[in-house]
Amino acid sequence: MCNTLNFYVGMIYMTKIRQIYLKKAGNKPVWDHCIQNGRANALKHDEVRIKVHYSGLNFADVMMKLGLYPDAPSTPYIPGYEVSGVVTEIGAGIEDLGIGQKICAGLAFGGYQSEVVLPRWQVVALPSHLSMKEGAGLIVSFITAYASFHQMARVKPSDRVFIDCATGALGHLSLALLKSHGVEKIYGATRSPEKLKFLRDQGIAAFTHQQLREMKNPPLFDLILNSRGGQSLREDYQRLSPMGRMVCIGASSFIAQGRKKIFSWNFLKNLWAMRGFSPVSLMNDNRAVMGLNALRLFDAPELLQESLKFLEQDQGVNMIPHIDKVFAADELELALDYLGQGHSRGKVLLKW
Amino acid sequence: MCNTLNFYVGMIYMTKIRQIYLKKAGNKPVWDHCIQNGRANALKHDEVRIKVHYSGLNFADVMMKLGLYPDAPSTPYIPGYEVSGVVTEIGAGIEDLGIGQKICAGLAFGGYQSEVVLPRWQVVALPSHLSMKEGAGLIVSFITAYASFHQMARVKPSDRVFIDCATGALGHLSLALLKSHGVEKIYGATRSPEKLKFLRDQGIAAFTHQQLREMKNPPLFDLILNSRGGQSLREDYQRLSPMGRMVCIGASSFIAQGRKKIFSWNFLKNLWAMRGFSPVSLMNDNRAVMGLNALRLFDAPELLQESLKFLEQDQGVNMIPHIDKVFAADELELALDYLGQGHSRGKVLLKW
Repeated sequence: MCNTLNFYVGMIYMTKIRQIYLKKAGNKPVWDHCIQNGRANALKHDEVRIKVHYSGLNFADVMMKLGLYPDAPSTPYIPGYEVSGVVTEIGAGIEDLGIGQKICAGLAFGGYQSEVVLPRWQVVALPSHLSMKEGAGLIVSFITAYASFHQMARVKPSDRVFIDCATGALGHLSLALLKSHGVEKIYGATRSPEKLKFLRDQGIAAFTHQQLREMKNPPLFDLILNSRGGQSLREDYQRLSPMGRMVCIGASSFIAQGRKKIFSWNFLKNLWAMRGFSPVSLMNDNRAVMGLNALRLFDAPELLQESLKFLEQDQGVNMIPHIDKVFAADELELALDYLGQGHSRGKVLLKW
Repeated sequence: MCNTLNFYVGMIYMTKIRQIYLKKAGNKPVWDHCIQNGRANALKHDEVRIKVHYSGLNFADVMMKLGLYPDAPSTPYIPGYEVSGVVTEIGAGIEDLGIGQKICAGLAFGGYQSEVVLPRWQVVALPSHLSMKEGAGLIVSFITAYASFHQMARVKPSDRVFIDCATGALGHLSLALLKSHGVEKIYGATRSPEKLKFLRDQGIAAFTHQQLREMKNPPLFDLILNSRGGQSLREDYQRLSPMGRMVCIGASSFIAQGRKKIFSWNFLKNLWAMRGFSPVSLMNDNRAVMGLNALRLFDAPELLQESLKFLEQDQGVNMIPHIDKVFAADELELALDYLGQGHSRGKVLLKW
């Protein structure tokens, strides 16, 4: 499937890159699959050229497609936050990566391409225990989990941790990360009863959101990862123990409703639930609310580098993303629908 | 000054206790200094009777006096959160404290008395490096500092920490606690230029609030302790680094204004600044807002016990509260005014 064609003519590097642009966002997004031919720009000192094998999809992409992602550039642009592939060229200053090296990498937009050029620090040599597919599903989920639990919440082994999106790609890596840190009291929730076994097989206490809501004596948690936003924020806030902390990482409950229902009663209730947490309430309750957009950490390289370093350490070996399904690059829309509708139990990829 | 008179007649324990009740809160509070005579209640299994030598005053007491403290019981009641003294009687189940033992203790109200009865877990044997005066100024500041930095923010030695109330009793113990944890980048602010030297002598970077506001390239902080609330909350929020966390522990800027100016423009701006922090902003900014009312931790004994245990460990030896001034119990109003007007550089006590 990969049409990238690279050849050198003297020092001139010719290129043919497949790219997918989002031309118009909305309920009926318009995509442009195009091929860029021509002479490649020369690499800077610290840059790496990568032939992409797989691109990972994320919820942020689904929100971009719907036009609901505030950080998106103006259209047309190439979405995509993570890739795996092979190094095809390196800048003059790079000594620790060679041509042919398998890598995975994170980037702020631009991942839906068959070739990318990135600064060295955004590139990680593919951990030896991972396949190229797994590599494409590693970076975003991992840096989100690492930033949530270590950099933001500073989780302790004794914490009772609740993850509201335990079956997804992030949930999967979160469990691995928490276990590798010695956390034993982990609770996971899911929308679908049929996914409960999948969670229990991973050795955690599991329930559906509905079951938790109906519990007579629900447990209190020291740390909650909330990815759904809306009304779930208020429910989860009430589930915090004294000194409990909630890390807000998204608002997937808005995606589930889509754009059509924007003026429904439920949508408005959800929106109202996104109002602020007052410092007076936080003080009275002895609670913390933390916000995280790990994708914004591309502006804070030292924090991202800290998490990427973790992957190269011994503990990194436990970080194995669960790949749910691979789509051809042509099938992007199918792939995003599949992800957005909550069908996946792990990562969804595009193959180039 | 201490009029407490204890004597046993068989198993009957007679008592004479001086107590100070707040009868009416407001700009002109009414106090009732009274003496309770009679037969003391028998101690429960885990209780300790204490002859109080000193009671510590806190900002919460100033707010109570003004009628601005939401947690206050209905009047009349006895305020006061901490005492030092000597054990005069112990419950049958207590083996690790004896009669005559010097102690300090924390309690949720009731500290303005010459005798108190408390459960064992609220009582700490007076650390040998502390005087009885220092003991009365230790508990509330220490548990607030410990809860803020360790239990809530989970400070790391590498954090750049900013304390907005560095010259007060809490600030003083906060510096000691942070230093004992290996934190090196500590910044302290104060209202008065004349207190800057006092801070710099303790080896931290110091500036007035005004100086910080006027700085052209102000530093960013990983952790901010905000005790002033109001508009300072918004200013401090903007000073947070990516992944930065702000612990809100009070609203002393409202006290400084007093009740008379309640409908001033400044008061209203201050009040508006206490609105909530929206989860969307927190996510976009990668920041955390944490609320702490350490006095509410009397409802979460296991957290309080953790901090009190720290005092008995080796590190506890660095926790020496700075005592500013001792007033006679009769002079309570003078003492509260002194504290409320920001004159103190440490702890204010009542002597019984």
